Amino acid sequence: MIIDCHGHYTTAPGELQKFRDAQIAGLKDPAQTPSRESLTISDDQIRDSLEKAQLKLQRERGTDLTIFSPRASAMAHHIGSELTSLEWSRVCNDLIERVCGLYPDNFVGVCQLPQSPGVPPANSAVELERCVRDLGFIGCNLNPDPSGGHWTSPPLTDRHWYPLYEKMVELDVPAMVHVSSSCNPNFHATGAHYLNADTTAFMQFLTSDLFKDFPTLRFIIPHGGGAVPFHWGRYRGLAQDLKRPPLEEMMKNNVFFDTCVYHQPGIDLLLKVVPLDNVLFGSEMVGAVRGIDPRSGHYYDDTKRYIEGSSLSADDKRKIFEGNARRVFPRLAKVA
Amino acid sequence: MIIDCHGHYTTAPGELQKFRDAQIAGLKDPAQTPSRESLTISDDQIRDSLEKAQLKLQRERGTDLTIFSPRASAMAHHIGSELTSLEWSRVCNDLIERVCGLYPDNFVGVCQLPQSPGVPPANSAVELERCVRDLGFIGCNLNPDPSGGHWTSPPLTDRHWYPLYEKMVELDVPAMVHVSSSCNPNFHATGAHYLNADTTAFMQFLTSDLFKDFPTLRFIIPHGGGAVPFHWGRYRGLAQDLKRPPLEEMMKNNVFFDTCVYHQPGIDLLLKVVPLDNVLFGSEMVGAVRGIDPRSGHYYDDTKRYIEGSSLSADDKRKIFEGNARRVFPRLAKVA
Repeated sequence: MIIDCHGHYTTAPGELQKFRDAQIAGLKDPAQTPSRESLTISDDQIRDSLEKAQLKLQRERGTDLTIFSPRASAMAHHIGSELTSLEWSRVCNDLIERVCGLYPDNFVGVCQLPQSPGVPPANSAVELERCVRDLGFIGCNLNPDPSGGHWTSPPLTDRHWYPLYEKMVELDVPAMVHVSSSCNPNFHATGAHYLNADTTAFMQFLTSDLFKDFPTLRFIIPHGGGAVPFHWGRYRGLAQDLKRPPLEEMMKNNVFFDTCVYHQPGIDLLLKVVPLDNVLFGSEMVGAVRGIDPRSGHYYDDTKRYIEGSSLSADDKRKIFEGNARRVFPRLAKVA
Repeated sequence: MIIDCHGHYTTAPGELQKFRDAQIAGLKDPAQTPSRESLTISDDQIRDSLEKAQLKLQRERGTDLTIFSPRASAMAHHIGSELTSLEWSRVCNDLIERVCGLYPDNFVGVCQLPQSPGVPPANSAVELERCVRDLGFIGCNLNPDPSGGHWTSPPLTDRHWYPLYEKMVELDVPAMVHVSSSCNPNFHATGAHYLNADTTAFMQFLTSDLFKDFPTLRFIIPHGGGAVPFHWGRYRGLAQDLKRPPLEEMMKNNVFFDTCVYHQPGIDLLLKVVPLDNVLFGSEMVGAVRGIDPRSGHYYDDTKRYIEGSSLSADDKRKIFEGNARRVFPRLAKVA
């Protein structure tokens, strides 16, 4: 079985964006604020949005199950208030539940959290619990920078985040550390902000004792861990200079990278330096990069090919394709 | 000849830091503000600070000339006002000139700029010109985020920066894109902020026509280009999706990476994907990572070993060790 740990519903029917546009318009003119009930998307629309995109690519590429969450760049926690984010998160998460209901063999849900700048992460615990207990979701996406590129929250290792971590531990669900769009013109979302957040989170974990406080807390750092594998020697050296544990020990049961790295040499490096128990197959499909690489004739984000093209043993490939995901997402066992 | 394009004076005599401490104390209590003349460092102190560090390592590793600038993490443009930065930059740059005067075969200068948050980059042109014309420097370090981790300046591709670029072009000197310490607790300086800035700058260049406006403007993105080589496929795909020129074409005469990547697999990846004409030997010695890798028995930052250990031809190695640096720093010809 091949489990893709990183997929977003980037192809949702246009009605969803219309709802969001109205919601944003409502921030200035409350009369335009839409009700959740006003959003009507039919099952056929959902089927159509997936059949020609994610499902088609699953079939073509030979992957089985996608751990599926709302479109990351659209979370935009910096827009509006906590209530804006809560409404938007509920709408997006409910839609993911419908996807998973229509295609239970192909998708399992991960939720967006109703984060908002300056609002305690504890306030996201209710929506997390609803998604896990009521909707059958198996994890969440946690935005380390709800301000969208201004980085005004404390580091992920600060006690600020602990109440949410307590709920994650109680529910036994991991979080993917995933920022959203950037309202800081310095940062292109998928070309800078995403990777910077990955790199930033890793260094926060490296310099803290967070996992002493939460031994079962688990984070997936997407996009192959940002800059980290390329600079593995730098991080090993920094850990050594700072008298911190070796990277392998820090990551062991708590920090995982996905394989959203879109070329063979990058994947080869990832698999060479990062412990194989800490790598989960992911493609971010349909996502940041949608084209076909003219050099290979295949989609850049067809990361399954790169893993297959690596020199790993069949056992190691199975870990990355399935085994590790089952360890990080124990609630998968209930659905697949 | 082996030219290391990335060295900082991280081992300056303690008097320099005392001056800075007094300068910072003076921001609250002007009576403590030191005069530039009050800073006295003898030639012997300078010799001692280098003989047991950079010079010793140059000899041990077999490198010849280091392109040398003030300690990057100490630039701290976010502290105090424009005047604070100007004083501090002059003091630091003058000290680099003394280093180069004492060891003209071993060091050539690159300057720190007196940037300050909200202050036009044009104001840095005077100090740049002084350093190049009067002190014989061959380049500068440009901080894309003088706010120290809050990223309040416009992107490097904004016209905000153009007056400084005009001076760089006039003087025919490149800039290394180099942030300083971070006052944002999210970002560890050498473990996150530096690499994030590298990644950010590359994506800014990728999405703009800056080099149409300045065909001879040259930037070195340090630390191997941040996350870029590891995500080379992502960037190729993004350029394609965004209908931008191929990466090789964008970088050609304008964007260069150094080799400050502290392990063999990272260097191998860098040299495999990035055009070899765009890679300059650098070690950041003595810098971010100071330890010895117990796996190899050598310093993590002894990057010369990794390049020598790569499969490049002798001609290609010469480009990286010397030829490319001479192309990027034409003023080198006057001194070495």
